[in-house]
Order: sequence, then C-alpha cells, then structure tokens
Amino acid sequence: MSVRALVFDVFGTLVDWRSGVAREAASLLAPYAPNLDAGAFADAWRGLYQPSMETVRSGRRPFVDLDTLHAESLPDVLGRFGVAGVPPGVAAELVQAWHRLDAWPEVPEALARLRGRFLLAPNSNGPVRLMVDLARRNGLVFDAVLGAGYSRDYKPKPALYRDAVAAFGFTPAETMMVAAHSSDLEAAASHGLATAHIARPHEHGPAGGELTPSLPVTYAAADLADLANQLGC
Amino acid sequence: MSVRALVFDVFGTLVDWRSGVAREAASLLAPYAPNLDAGAFADAWRGLYQPSMETVRSGRRPFVDLDTLHAESLPDVLGRFGVAGVPPGVAAELVQAWHRLDAWPEVPEALARLRGRFLLAPNSNGPVRLMVDLARRNGLVFDAVLGAGYSRDYKPKPALYRDAVAAFGFTPAETMMVAAHSSDLEAAASHGLATAHIARPHEHGPAGGELTPSLPVTYAAADLADLANQLGC
Repeated sequence: MSVRALVFDVFGTLVDWRSGVAREAASLLAPYAPNLDAGAFADAWRGLYQPSMETVRSGRRPFVDLDTLHAESLPDVLGRFGVAGVPPGVAAELVQAWHRLDAWPEVPEALARLRGRFLLAPNSNGPVRLMVDLARRNGLVFDAVLGAGYSRDYKPKPALYRDAVAAFGFTPAETMMVAAHSSDLEAAASHGLATAHIARPHEHGPAGGELTPSLPVTYAAADLADLANQLGC
Repeated sequence: MSVRALVFDVFGTLVDWRSGVAREAASLLAPYAPNLDAGAFADAWRGLYQPSMETVRSGRRPFVDLDTLHAESLPDVLGRFGVAGVPPGVAAELVQAWHRLDAWPEVPEALARLRGRFLLAPNSNGPVRLMVDLARRNGLVFDAVLGAGYSRDYKPKPALYRDAVAAFGFTPAETMMVAAHSSDLEAAASHGLATAHIARPHEHGPAGGELTPSLPVTYAAADLADLANQLGC
C-alpha cells in the first residue's frame, strides 16, 4: 500500500519554535528583562506545553486552544525568570510569537515538491489560525488544516490520528505522519499510520534534538528535502 | 470594521454542481439508462440534499458526511428515473461525481486575487476530502478547510458560522460569508458575519439561479471577479 497523504507535526518538525520564541521574547521583554536568557526562556515556556495540554487530554477541563494554554502558562515562565511588570498587551503579543516562527530552511521548497505527489495537512497541536499564520509567513501550502483545531483534543490522543486518516479518506497505511519526535510517530503507528522521522538536531538549541527515531519507522530522513528525495518527488 | 477573512459556500457558489453531476451520471449510467435526462437527474439528487441533511441537523442521527448522505439518497433517485441494475461499484463512482465538479469559469483567477488580501476557507456542507478534491481539480488554494467536516453538523446550524469565525480568530464582522444563496447569507448575518452574494444565474440550468439576494448584504456581486473588484483586489 503506497502513501497518498502526509500529515505533519509542525513545532520542531516544520518550524524552529525555539529560535522564533527566543527572538520575540528578547525583543518584547527587553524593557522588563534586559539580561534575559531568551533561549532558556523559550525552553521553559515549551516545558510547560505537555503539562498544560494534559489538563485537556485528561478530561479535567473542556478543550481550549494552544493560544489559551500559552497565555495561561506565560505568567509562570515570567515568574521563573524574575520578569515583572509586563503589561497585558505585551504578554498577549508574546503569545502571538508562536504564530511568527520561521520554517527550517529546506521546508518551503521540499513541501512544494511533496505537494506534487501527496495531499498535505498539518496535524499539530496548534489551532487553525496559528497554522494558517505559520503557513502564510513561510509560503507553505497545505490542502487542509487538521490537528487540535479539527479534533478538539491534543496529540497523542487517538482522535488526532483517526480524524486525520478519516479527513483525507485513505487507509491508515496510505496516510503518513511526519514528525521529528518518536513519541508522535509511536502514537501514529499504533493507529496503523505510516511514519516518517525527520532529524532536527537543533530543535532544542544547545540541547540538540532527535537525530534518529527510537522506534522502527517507514522512512527516516535527514530533513524534509531528504524525505522528498526518498519518496521520489 | 473591515473584512479580513472570506468563507465560501461551494456547491453552486464556486462550482457548477449541476453540469458536473449530469455529465458523470450520463456517462456512468449510459449502460443502464441510455435515455436519461441527466440534468433532471442531477436536480432530483440535489433535491434530496436538504432533507438528507435534516436527519443530522435535527439530531435524529449522529453526524455522517455528505458522501454518506449522497450514497443513501442515490437509490431513491435511480428509482424515480426507473434506472435498475446499477452495480454497487458504479453507484459508488457516481457518489464520487460530487468530488469532480468544475469551478465556474472566473473562480480560479478571482480566488487567487482574493487570496492576496484575505484568509480563505470553504465553509461548505461537503467533507474535507471533497473540498480538497474540488480545490485540486480546479487549482483553488485555501488557507484551511472549514464547514461540515470541521463542525460535524450542517448549515444553517449555528456551529458552522461560529466555528468559521473562531477558526480564523477575527470578529464576526471581519469574517465574510460568500454565497450564491440568500438562506446561507441570512444565517451568517444572524451570527454577525459580513455577507457577499454572488449571482449564479445558471446554477439550476434552465431553472436559473439567484440573480440578486433576497436580503440586505454587505456586497452583491455579478460573479467572484466582480467581488474581487469591489474589494479592491
């Protein structure tokens, strides 16, 4: 069974969240924290990502989108870095930093090549507008936007993988999850999806990133252009 | 408040469902109904569209997608035209006719112009894959796919309009529903959306189509290119 549709993790896989959030934090927080370690700030904020989503995944609260979770976790991060006096408008602008991330350099061209052969959609924990903003900023064209907005839950809950398969209407084996994170691919594989791992050695800055998948995958690629090469695009 | 996002009705507004379904029915049913009035067949099938969706809108059954509703209503239409002996594979192919409709002639270029100024999404009763197939066939590029797939209900239920506004994150007044049907625009306006009416004098073939809206609208246009002109694109 050959692959017909690709669904993508986005933060880390297609875009460089750490550099983008650090850049915006350094700029927006300069008046309140002139000596901020902006990379560490981005790491700390991202560190609250899984626990914040878990409040939804667990059913403890109704679905709220990632903008809301980012806004809720921001005061904690600011507190950890001793940053005080940030006006609400600046905090709101900082939440929007997640909408202004740059794609990894090879992504726009590689995605356009992949679009010649496959249906494409983000399958991310970010909401529709965030996906649209990242796509417009980086010149990425998708066929649809799936993920948390579409499924009203967060990966790795089954709905995200099942809904992505059903939305494009191919079999699970014809639908491939593309991610830089083995945990995402493990969940996708458990629902029968094909899997492609993208190495992102700089996702976490000095702390590196996943160089190779920790489970057997359908494709393991050095970057998205390598995946397009392997798929004959 | 100026418009920032356009959400589109699709069947009749962007694509010519009657000619496309008639073309496919004439071709696929030729062995079983050589003298079929294919335009009337398309009209009869479309005539079951609202009653079939009402079974979902009313809550009498859980959400099922439009492909399912089309498949369920097809035997009734075949019976009305005295067409017998259609194999299941041919019937399934005929349901796919709704995925192979042509855009009205000015739509691809006009939509590309609109995309330079606005975020765009279909807000149709068709499912994601159907929207994707129509977009790919006709070279239409959207930012997201909203509508029945996203909201798990059918227009004119409130979820379709509220979810479309929320997905792009603008105010209702900044979000404009574009449709060739006053009923759709009336529902959109009741949720505060801006409205654009597109005249489609040939939607129903010899029976015509809506030339002008039956309610006050934000824009009334002769076709999508005219709307792009009026919006300064």
